[in-house]
This record gives sequence, C-alpha cells and structure tokens, in this order.
Amino acid sequence: MNLFGQGRHLLSVLQFDRPTLAGLFQLADAVSPIARREAVCTVLDGAMLGSLFFEPSTRTRLSFESAFLRLGGEVTTTTGFTFSSMAKGESIADTARVVSGYSDVLVVRHPDTGSVAEFAAASTVPVVNAGDGAGEHPSQALLDVYTMEKELAARGGGVDGCRIAILGDLRFGRTAHSLVKLLSLYDSLSFSFFAPPGLELPKSVADYATGRGHSVHFHDTVVEAVQGVDVVYATRVQRERMPEDLAQANAAGDLLNKAILAQADNLDVVIMHPLPRDSRCDSFDLSTDVDDLPGLSIFKQTDNGLIVRMAIFLTALGVSTEAVRLTTKQRPWRATLRD
Amino acid sequence: MNLFGQGRHLLSVLQFDRPTLAGLFQLADAVSPIARREAVCTVLDGAMLGSLFFEPSTRTRLSFESAFLRLGGEVTTTTGFTFSSMAKGESIADTARVVSGYSDVLVVRHPDTGSVAEFAAASTVPVVNAGDGAGEHPSQALLDVYTMEKELAARGGGVDGCRIAILGDLRFGRTAHSLVKLLSLYDSLSFSFFAPPGLELPKSVADYATGRGHSVHFHDTVVEAVQGVDVVYATRVQRERMPEDLAQANAAGDLLNKAILAQADNLDVVIMHPLPRDSRCDSFDLSTDVDDLPGLSIFKQTDNGLIVRMAIFLTALGVSTEAVRLTTKQRPWRATLRD
Amino acid sequence: MNLFGQGRHLLSVLQFDRPTLAGLFQLADAVSPIARREAVCTVLDGAMLGSLFFEPSTRTRLSFESAFLRLGGEVTTTTGFTFSSMAKGESIADTARVVSGYSDVLVVRHPDTGSVAEFAAASTVPVVNAGDGAGEHPSQALLDVYTMEKELAARGGGVDGCRIAILGDLRFGRTAHSLVKLLSLYDSLSFSFFAPPGLELPKSVADYATGRGHSVHFHDTVVEAVQGVDVVYATRVQRERMPEDLAQANAAGDLLNKAILAQADNLDVVIMHPLPRDSRCDSFDLSTDVDDLPGLSIFKQTDNGLIVRMAIFLTALGVSTEAVRLTTKQRPWRATLRD
Repeated sequence: MNLFGQGRHLLSVLQFDRPTLAGLFQLADAVSPIARREAVCTVLDGAMLGSLFFEPSTRTRLSFESAFLRLGGEVTTTTGFTFSSMAKGESIADTARVVSGYSDVLVVRHPDTGSVAEFAAASTVPVVNAGDGAGEHPSQALLDVYTMEKELAARGGGVDGCRIAILGDLRFGRTAHSLVKLLSLYDSLSFSFFAPPGLELPKSVADYATGRGHSVHFHDTVVEAVQGVDVVYATRVQRERMPEDLAQANAAGDLLNKAILAQADNLDVVIMHPLPRDSRCDSFDLSTDVDDLPGLSIFKQTDNGLIVRMAIFLTALGVSTEAVRLTTKQRPWRATLRD
Repeated sequence: MNLFGQGRHLLSVLQFDRPTLAGLFQLADAVSPIARREAVCTVLDGAMLGSLFFEPSTRTRLSFESAFLRLGGEVTTTTGFTFSSMAKGESIADTARVVSGYSDVLVVRHPDTGSVAEFAAASTVPVVNAGDGAGEHPSQALLDVYTMEKELAARGGGVDGCRIAILGDLRFGRTAHSLVKLLSLYDSLSFSFFAPPGLELPKSVADYATGRGHSVHFHDTVVEAVQGVDVVYATRVQRERMPEDLAQANAAGDLLNKAILAQADNLDVVIMHPLPRDSRCDSFDLSTDVDDLPGLSIFKQTDNGLIVRMAIFLTALGVSTEAVRLTTKQRPWRATLRD
Repeated sequence: MNLFGQGRHLLSVLQFDRPTLAGLFQLADAVSPIARREAVCTVLDGAMLGSLFFEPSTRTRLSFESAFLRLGGEVTTTTGFTFSSMAKGESIADTARVVSGYSDVLVVRHPDTGSVAEFAAASTVPVVNAGDGAGEHPSQALLDVYTMEKELAARGGGVDGCRIAILGDLRFGRTAHSLVKLLSLYDSLSFSFFAPPGLELPKSVADYATGRGHSVHFHDTVVEAVQGVDVVYATRVQRERMPEDLAQANAAGDLLNKAILAQADNLDVVIMHPLPRDSRCDSFDLSTDVDDLPGLSIFKQTDNGLIVRMAIFLTALGVSTEAVRLTTKQRPWRATLRD
C-alpha cells in the first residue's frame, strides 16, 4: 500500500499517522541535496505533472512545478478561473477524467471546499490537493512541521514535548487548523494561541488537540502567548476572507515584532510564518524588524517546501529512494553557481 | 514530400487522402505505448514547440503540449487574447516570423477564420492549426476518425460501409463539418443527421458527402436518427456562437440519453462526443446516464487525441517510426504508476 | 569575477566595458549553431529558470524561455500583474527571496523603474533585467549591437567609425537610450537623430555620447537623417506611454519607407527596428514596403536575440564555452527539419 493510500492521492493531513509522516520526511531528507542543486536527478524522466490552479497561487504553483522539474519530470500549467470547459458546463468529473489522461500526476487548487476530493474521485492518476478554499492545504502543514523538526533538531531538540505559539487569524486561516491537526500526531505538545477578538480558533480544532493529549492555552496578549515557547508561528489576517468590520478592526500596528519578543524575553525563538507576509504599514502582521533574529525560519519554510513537495511527488508515483539514488548525477554547471 | 505537403503545415482536413490518413494513423499506433506511459521517448530531445492560443482552449492546449512533451520535446506557452505585440498593431506576418524563430513547430489557435493559414504563410517552421474560429480544427476530426477506427475494429468491423449518426448543433459546430469531410474519404458511409430547427447542417457539407458517394439522411427525432447506426456522435449546442433566440430554444432536456437509446434499441452503439459535455440540467446535451454503457467512447477520444497529436508532430518534423523506436526506453518509474 | 560582476545580475548596459561586451558576443557566436538547431545542447540539464513577467511582453518572454530551454534547462513561468502574493502586501524583497529559492536564475520584467534592481538585491540567484518600465532593457540593446556587428561585418566593415541614424520616438522609447549608451563603448561613431516635435532625445543621452567622443547630429527630416549612414534604426511611437496630444500628433503616414530611402540614395542601408512594428495605416512606423530590401535586418535581430540571451544565461550561471562544447550533440530529428 502506498503511503498516501490506495488512490495515491494527497488530499488531507488526516491521511497521516506518525510512521507515514516519518516516511515522507525521510524521503524529503534524501532529495534535499537535489533541491539544493548539489546534484541533478532524472528519476521522473518522461513523467508529466498537470498543474491546475483554478484559483491563483503563484508561489504554491511555482514550488510544486519546480519540485517536479527538479526530479526530471515535465509540467503543463493551467491557471485562472476561466478553465474554458468548465465555463461551458463541464462537470468536475469530466474535466478530471480528461486531463488525467494527459498527465501522470495532478496538482489541483480550487476555491471550493471539497472540490479537489471530487476531482480526485474521477481522476485516473494521483491528485495532490494544493488548497481547496476553506478546506485543506496539506503540503503547507507538511512543510511547516518538517521545518519545525529541522530547526528544533539544529538546537538539539525535537517536536515532541515542545511549546508552540500560534498567532493571528486563527478562525479564517486554514493553515493554523491543518497545522494543529498535523502536529497533534506528536507527543505532549503545549499550544499557546493568540487571536484578536472575532478571529479565535474554532473550538473543534482546540478539542482535536486536547483529545490527543496536548495542552492548549489561550492568551489575551501576544507577549503572554510567546513567553517561554520554542516556536512562534505567526499568520496573516486574511482580510479577503472575512467580513469588512473584522478586516477593519484588525488593521493596525504589528502582530509580532522585535520589541514584543524582547518584552517576552524570547528573542531566540524559532520564528515561522506561512507567507506571504503583509509588509505594509499597519498590516497587523509579522514585522520585518525580526529579519535579523537568529531564529528567523520563514524562508527556510519556503526552501523546505520544495523538498517536501519533491517527496510528495515521489510518494504519489511510488518511486523509491534507491531509484532516486540511481538517477542522480553531478551537474555540468556545478562549479559555477553559488559555489 | 512530407505527409502534410511542402510547408509541413497541418491546416485543414482537406489536405488528406486515404493513404496519407492511413500513414498518420500507423504512426499513431506506433507511439501509443508512449502515450500510455509504457515507455519513455526522447526522439524530440532539444526540439521546441511554441504553443500559441490567442483564444483559450485549455483541453486542446494541454493535449498538444502533453503530446510534445511525451516525445521528449520542450514547450513554451502563450495564452489569451492579449498577445501584447498584436495589440500594438503588429501584423500576423511579423508575429509569425518572429515567434517561428524561437521554435521548431508551432500550434496556433485563433478566433478568426483563415488567420492560422495566414500565420503559416509567414512562419519559418511548420504550423499546426488548433482551431481558427468557424474554420477548421483538423486534429479534432483526426482523433474522432481514429477513435471510430479503433472502436469499430474492436467490434470486428471497420469504418467503410458503416452507419454514423451525427446529432446536435450541426450549423455552428465546426466539428461536425470537419468530421463529415474527413469521413468522406472512406467508402459507402451512411450518415444520419438530427439537428433542432435552425441548427441544421449546411447544404454544402451534405453535398460534399453525397458528392463522394455517401448516403445522407435527415431525421426529425433523435430516436429515428440513431436506429440501426454503428456510431452516434453527439455535439453540444454552442450557445456562445449563436443568436440568443436559438440558444434559448435549445435549452431543455437531453439531446441523447439512455432512454432514447433503449427506445431505438441501440444501447450498444459506439457513443462519441467532442467534449466538453454540458452536464448542467436542461443543457440539451449528452446525458451522463449513458456513462455506464459499453459503447461509451468519449474519454477514449481524448486519450486518443494525445496519440494522434504525437503523430501530427512527428509528421510535421519529419521523424520516422524507426527514429522513435531507437529513442524509446523503459521509464525509471515504471513499476510504480498504476501497474 | 563573473562577466556580470559579483552578484551575477544583468541589470543595465552600463555594466559593460568593451572587453566584457566582446566576451559576451564570443559566447554568443559559440552557441549560435545550437540556436540554429544544428545541434542539441544539454549543458543546463537540471537548471531552472524562473521567468517572472509582472508586465506582459510575450515576445521577450518567449525569447528568454526558448534560449534557456535550448541549453537544456527547464522553465517555470509567471505572467501578469496579478502576482497574488504581491497583491496581499508582500514586499519585493520577500517575493524575490522566496522565488529565488525555486530557481537557479531569474528573468524579471516589471513596470516600475528600479524595481528589478530591488528584486535582485534580495535574490539568492542571478537576476536578468527584462525591462523595468522607463528604466533599462539591457538584452534588447545587446542584441541590437550584436546584430550591427554581424551585419556590418558581412559587408566588410565594423561598428567602430560607422554612421548610425536613430529615428522615431527618442523621448519615451527606452530602447534608443540604452542603445546609444551601449554603442558609446565603440570608437568614433557618428549618430544622426530624427524625432518628431515633442519626442526629441533627452539632452542627457546625447551628452553621454558626445562625452565619450562621438559626434551627434539632429535632423529635421528623415531623408536628411538617413543620408550616408551605414545603419538606420527605426522605432515605434510608444503612444501608450505619452500624453494624448503627442500620440495624436504622431499618427500619420510612415516614419520610414522605400521612397524615403530612395530619396536619400541609401536603399542598401542596414535597416533595424526593435519590433513590434505597427503595420496599421498611418502608424508612423517602418513601412512593410522595405521588407524586400537587401539590408532588412529586423528579423535577424529577433533571431540573434535568442543567441545573445543564451550567452547571457551562460554568463549568469558561469558556464564555460568548453562545458557547452562537451554537452552538445547531434539531434535525432536532424535530417528532417528544414534541412
């Protein structure tokens, strides 16, 4: 049985248990030299990715496409809402059946919750969910947890037993929900949440964590929330997804900055963010003044995203680490690019 | 002389005679294992397709691009009406001359009839017409006829002498026109047409078929039209191309469904459709209730489209079956994807 | 030190001196057989180009992408103003840092002057400026000068000491500015300028040339300007970049045509244009009636653009001519495409 189950689709973080998560991360470790351009891999020679973004998300699309290309595959891209056949009344099932005939694996992003699972049901090839509205975006949670593992390991620790603050819009941000669920696979975590009024974490998500033995704390200030934690995960206020009055109410100052971390006596904490970060004034987001702190990991997250997505594709296509090893070689431009 | 003539362009189904059509289909047969991912081919290593869709047509674009990539080539894509140079007054001839300098073959779709031929006249590389408004869309007719050959052969028959019903919008749908013309290369066909009032087949197309010795029948009901035929080819009412009153008049119920086929005592007929199929209620299109019938071939058409387009590219670039054979190999991900 | 300096970015024509320009052109000469499809090259096997066009420019994008693909690399493309993260308030620096993690070199076009340099400052990989508004578009000037070298050499001459007429919108057209600056690296040129009232060359650009020892002449008619010159470089009136009254005032007749060249007794002159050429009536651009003249070089420019951009990528990635030679081979479709 494939890591992703019988259909080989990756639709939700709930598909994982601790061993399958560890298996995916081992594969990610194995391909990281390829992602870092220390070697060139051709294992997916002749394989085709259909990249279907019915909703725009340039960074996610580029990360998936680059990951597939780095493994030697080829990509066809479709972006935007105007998928012409759908506009002519074609069902998701017909679209999925047709385009799966052109590709070996599909990455699908769609604005409607559940639509990617519907797409997968009619596809003849594995489907990777790249975000379905308020639903899931599993590769984001996977790269976040992978980054936590790496950053905590570099400090001599691990995810089990650690303390994690999650800040910002915890109501409309699906990222926080998926992250809490995936982290719940670990042991004895302590979650500290801060959200502005009206943007609180849904009770169901908090219950999910406590039901799996983790402790959950809600704080009224960011300073309180980040005191003593190992990792702070800040999120953008997704104003485009919320009522106007909530959007207005949360547009002032910074969510997190160096002064707050100093006040909480936690300037060395691992700092994460799913990006994009809103760097405009009064965006109520992560300030750029933290960019010189030692724990800044926000670009490690995006770099790791490439690695994790390579592992996702290898898993979906059932490629072994050994097959990767046999098709990896030196690159002709080795001595010349940033080395 | 190349199968497509001196310019190596594929502009119209009228370029074919029976031997050149057979030659193209033999090439398609030869590359079908590559399309089905049983092998990887690198024959077009280093070759470049310029995919130019001045009018959107995602499925056609993906099919052409995947076909080229499956043969080892590379693709650059341009989509949308806003080809910026043309908006600045550049002639089709200048555009064609410039972009043909970047590619080894071009696929062009354009909303204006005749524009692709104009494009080809100035191109320095072969041009494949992917649809020029009310004009031609030759690869669609080719994949349709190829599918008919395969499906009828699987039933122990052939296209010569067979009975074919063509249903739906026979006036605005260029697909039906090209299909009738290409099928007319065969011997002794019997065409049964059904179109709603106002959407009848142009007399010129019917005359084309009778002039080549085929019999042509017009029917007042779909039941009548599909009785005793070997193949039924249903088409969508192209409401976006017709006057509002005609569009309104043809928006109720199904064009073809299981009940109609049962009434005509022809539930085993080969069922085809150029897709997309409008699956909304009262779309007056092919119902999804036929999807479990044994003769359903609509997704075989799109799968075959990939194969036929691979053959088109090989023909345009003058690549032999032998060259394909010598550059085809096992894929490293063989044992793992759906096998 | 890399030809492009420490950052390996190509941001401006002002980065060049005469030896580095000669070095780039030697590299271009070396790869021209690959651009002409006489051979296939895989030197950039496994390398990734991120093609980021925040402003549309199809021809420039296709030229860069084709150049990279011809060298064996892979491309991811982003076009249009709606780069979704930037719309959510992401800074150019954050965007650059993230996407540079997905690629080995970036080509960036952006409507704002200076934005590409800002992008490069935060990128972890080399950035090539493909046009930043009224700022620079260095690859255009490089391909123009490369073409002049080739065309004048074919006539037994060289760029040093030659006479060059530059016509049209010399105020809003950044092409003319960059061209004059890059040409100023040569010796003893004589520039003849013609611009309609209101579209004259900025004094700073003329001073740049005279400051480097070239002679500069302003003419009131095109006939006068093109008399006795070796090269005439015509440019389109960029109506979309100027006030309405200026746009209106310069919309009649031809800027340059065969009759004008005959009157100036210079029908054999090398004729250049950055394209697109506005071929509509009264566009006040280069007439198509010059297309049969022996000196027409406008499509040689676009063909050379591919070659020069290949050389730009090799330089940015530090690839040697020797590495190119070792990874160049016959193509399997050799005997069949236009040979």
